[in-house]
Amino acid sequence: MTFVNAKHAAGRSRSSRIVRIALAQVNTTVGDLPGNTARVLDFLGRARGMGAEIVAFPELVLTGYPPEDLLFRPEFIDQNMAALDEVVRATRGITAIVGFAERAGDLYNAAAIAHDGEIAGICRKAHLPNYSVFDEFRYFRQGRTPFVLTRGPLTFGVNICEDIWLPSNPTQLAVYGDAELVINLSSSPFHMGKSVARDRMLATRAMDGVSLVAFVNTVGGQDELVFDGNSRVFGPRGECLARAKAFEEDLLVIDLDLDQVFSARLKDPRTRELSQREDAGSPLPIVPLSRLAEPERAPLKPLPVRTPDGPEEVYEALVLGTRDYVRKNDFAHVLLGLSGGIDSALTCSIAVDALGASSVTGVFMPSPFTAAASGEDASALAANLGIQMLTLPIAEEMEAYRKALAAVFSGMPEDVTEENLQSRIRGNVLMALSNKFGWLLLTTGNKSEYSVGYTTLYGDMAGGFAVLKDAPKTLVYELARHRNVAAGGRAWIPERTVTREPTAELRPGQKDTDSLPPYDVLDPILRAYVEEDWEVERIVAMGYDRSLVQRVVRLVDRAEYKRRQAPPGIRITPRALGKDRRLPITNRHQPWRD
Amino acid sequence: MTFVNAKHAAGRSRSSRIVRIALAQVNTTVGDLPGNTARVLDFLGRARGMGAEIVAFPELVLTGYPPEDLLFRPEFIDQNMAALDEVVRATRGITAIVGFAERAGDLYNAAAIAHDGEIAGICRKAHLPNYSVFDEFRYFRQGRTPFVLTRGPLTFGVNICEDIWLPSNPTQLAVYGDAELVINLSSSPFHMGKSVARDRMLATRAMDGVSLVAFVNTVGGQDELVFDGNSRVFGPRGECLARAKAFEEDLLVIDLDLDQVFSARLKDPRTRELSQREDAGSPLPIVPLSRLAEPERAPLKPLPVRTPDGPEEVYEALVLGTRDYVRKNDFAHVLLGLSGGIDSALTCSIAVDALGASSVTGVFMPSPFTAAASGEDASALAANLGIQMLTLPIAEEMEAYRKALAAVFSGMPEDVTEENLQSRIRGNVLMALSNKFGWLLLTTGNKSEYSVGYTTLYGDMAGGFAVLKDAPKTLVYELARHRNVAAGGRAWIPERTVTREPTAELRPGQKDTDSLPPYDVLDPILRAYVEEDWEVERIVAMGYDRSLVQRVVRLVDRAEYKRRQAPPGIRITPRALGKDRRLPITNRHQPWRD
Repeated sequence: MTFVNAKHAAGRSRSSRIVRIALAQVNTTVGDLPGNTARVLDFLGRARGMGAEIVAFPELVLTGYPPEDLLFRPEFIDQNMAALDEVVRATRGITAIVGFAERAGDLYNAAAIAHDGEIAGICRKAHLPNYSVFDEFRYFRQGRTPFVLTRGPLTFGVNICEDIWLPSNPTQLAVYGDAELVINLSSSPFHMGKSVARDRMLATRAMDGVSLVAFVNTVGGQDELVFDGNSRVFGPRGECLARAKAFEEDLLVIDLDLDQVFSARLKDPRTRELSQREDAGSPLPIVPLSRLAEPERAPLKPLPVRTPDGPEEVYEALVLGTRDYVRKNDFAHVLLGLSGGIDSALTCSIAVDALGASSVTGVFMPSPFTAAASGEDASALAANLGIQMLTLPIAEEMEAYRKALAAVFSGMPEDVTEENLQSRIRGNVLMALSNKFGWLLLTTGNKSEYSVGYTTLYGDMAGGFAVLKDAPKTLVYELARHRNVAAGGRAWIPERTVTREPTAELRPGQKDTDSLPPYDVLDPILRAYVEEDWEVERIVAMGYDRSLVQRVVRLVDRAEYKRRQAPPGIRITPRALGKDRRLPITNRHQPWRD
Repeated sequence: MTFVNAKHAAGRSRSSRIVRIALAQVNTTVGDLPGNTARVLDFLGRARGMGAEIVAFPELVLTGYPPEDLLFRPEFIDQNMAALDEVVRATRGITAIVGFAERAGDLYNAAAIAHDGEIAGICRKAHLPNYSVFDEFRYFRQGRTPFVLTRGPLTFGVNICEDIWLPSNPTQLAVYGDAELVINLSSSPFHMGKSVARDRMLATRAMDGVSLVAFVNTVGGQDELVFDGNSRVFGPRGECLARAKAFEEDLLVIDLDLDQVFSARLKDPRTRELSQREDAGSPLPIVPLSRLAEPERAPLKPLPVRTPDGPEEVYEALVLGTRDYVRKNDFAHVLLGLSGGIDSALTCSIAVDALGASSVTGVFMPSPFTAAASGEDASALAANLGIQMLTLPIAEEMEAYRKALAAVFSGMPEDVTEENLQSRIRGNVLMALSNKFGWLLLTTGNKSEYSVGYTTLYGDMAGGFAVLKDAPKTLVYELARHRNVAAGGRAWIPERTVTREPTAELRPGQKDTDSLPPYDVLDPILRAYVEEDWEVERIVAMGYDRSLVQRVVRLVDRAEYKRRQAPPGIRITPRALGKDRRLPITNRHQPWRD
């Protein structure tokens, strides 16, 4: 629990203009209406126990986010409405703001403002994101009517996620002008750099409205997405008054001094202009909540907070995304292939940090092309991390396939077919262990490989969850080095794994650079093309060889069919290889052509 | 080419109110701007040669449909604008209506009306579908301004696909009131029953507006989608005046008698009301196209047309979808596993009808559990269809895996692990052939199996294209029987394949009904749940056992992770297991619970 007091004296008088609010940064599970409701009730009780007058929960907290096509199921909407009723009944002595899917003729992404057992108002999301990973026009009708409520001395507005990202229409802006506090309910997923941009925007909104802005975000992993939490409260000059934890559940409780807002507004009367809407001369209708007797409560003590960034933040996102995928899908144990290379080592490290060493099994599957160093490094990793390692050579299976196919392949040279077979034998062995023991298979490929198709469908792409799917190879190295530093004196990822030249070891002496440019050349090209949609010309202008850029772009486009059958993985960049990137397989566009 | 004359005399006078229009039902390829442009120019030339005054092309004909995230690439939009210029320059003596992506500050799904080398107007799609397989809010801004044009005696309006599906706003309706002809450019994908509903709607629109309605649709396969063509012209009483072919390219040329519309309107003056819009007292602005000298042209001769329906229509959709996926992805040859069962037999039959027998290889991979009847039926099928068949037993690979895993599996009973291994060995063998020879692997699973997860990931689910992915097992039988009837006297799918009880043959004596209810019980439950989102209660009320329904619903939900890694397949129902069904994998909703 994070406690912050913006300003408090040893005691408080009843007439004070200080309001205590709580932001419940909860980790929900999509579809788990009973579980999510229980979690909301638990945090609501804790907020009440802390003396909070208002407790706010994230966007669609009852359904989990994003519920996707579950929203088409009538019984799902029913259960979510019933869950809301249950929460409303529990709001004796406290105001709760709860995200849910409102069925009212059509469906709305909504927030109920519940108070003392009744719903005082319902706020409907006005701006529905339908870009990147979002499909909200598929499900919801847009809300049209913002409103403002009072609770004792406090006048506050509520809006939902995207509503605060847009500079907005005059009516929406009026909320900032009329309310002293705007509470934003979000399910805002992580990617690198997002929390900085988000904090900057929230601070600007608070300053624009000369108001307090409280942002409460979901935390946790859901398939491709990780929600980072990082709930915040900003003051009327854009200053950050309080921060919740990153990548963990938290209940952020803070005392808000409304006189601070009032006095700032008198000095900066822009809010009067914001309240002058084009469509009405009068302020927004204000919904009053009855004033309760002020609860007895102890003053809050501040706790230090830290701002996460860099590889630490990404590593935490990967750990949380992995832990939640495994646990929310009811697995107790994972396995993965260990090659002695960096991708499987980092994936293993993340799995151990997410689940504990006793829940992770590594499988080393040498072929005749596997170097001794690979086995040594895989064993060292397993020993360092304290996991079980199985060694299952694949030479016999290779020979069985060779014999079975000898007649059909007669007279043809060996090629990528035989390399893929090795990879697919390993995939089969891992899936057999997964089936027999009920373990989830983690896939170890990185974003650079997935982008250019340097992977084997049903081979090293086999598995339920691809931890590093959105991590470019250069970032994989950075994360491994970060984790080794964090391990302090303790040996973690073997040094040779980090320094050795990458190889798939599917034929004698093979190196990644036989097929691909060095990763420090490849990754910036991929970022420009895959994440930024840059044209070949523009990438070449960065200083890269034209024919190399053309080759890379062509590889990316030609591998679309493989990615379509890839397992989901954790999104950590602004555009991952998942539902935020929707390209046709059948596609004759040839941007690599001169 | 389909020629229809609504009404014509042996000769025509210059003063006649008869206009000849052409609907160019072309098969484009997504991303192939040069190829699509060449096709448009070819059809434009043919329409001119036929004496048509107007030629209309489908929605987004230059980019292909749906271009998906290619629309985010600047050079793609550039090339599409350049392609439009090229088409516009070719409109000497003819009016062409051409779908393209218009870059004008933002992006619009648009149609250019080009005439004599110049653009006379641009119509922007107003209603952007964002449901089912459609994501148009992701890419486009909504158009706001409908307009009407004249060409000599003809006053016509243009709109795009979804625009005609909605009863629409007053301004849109005015188009129907002001124009004698409404031309709708569509890329409207097939599913069972769609063309009947579409024709009914188009006839109603024509009757409502007392106008002519010309509907020009894309034809061809694009990943999951098949566009059925079926372009149409309807008269002012809702009568169908002309039909283009289904599932084939076509140029539909028809003489429209405008006096028929004029006279119908005088008797039925509803159109005057439609033209009285709320937002303006005057009719829509009319853009005149200069009147050209009337071309010399021969009168048209009517051709008989047929209305497709039932299994024949579905079979044609599957053939076209398969042919286009294979060809547009530049494959010359396909392979598939033959088990002696009905799914692989029907897939094989579709492949042969799509590509010819010499482009198809069947692979029979017996295990010790394979019955003699299976081999006989696979061989009979290959002989009947005239394809090459390879026989590659898998016993040696099974033994190699058994030995490799013996120590780890020691003391544990055989279970689904060993069954999956067999299936995955077959997947590997097929992929090895695919890799070595450059053949595309067709997957043979049906919708019933994919729905309940009665499939092996990386095993029988391996492949590039799943022909029957949206065909429930009962429909698979219906399609096989249909095709056998269509074969006339010639032996096609062996009778025993159609009549034998379904089995996966992964253990001795196994039958599908060991794990699943009979398909004639399963399929209606699946349709209700997967396609219609019915609740368990409602399905039980159809007369099914509650615990059975609960079991089926649970199986469907638990198999989501497999479907996420499935190859694409052809959509033939209103909801397939593709991009029209977006469910979370991590999902604790349990609609099967009491």
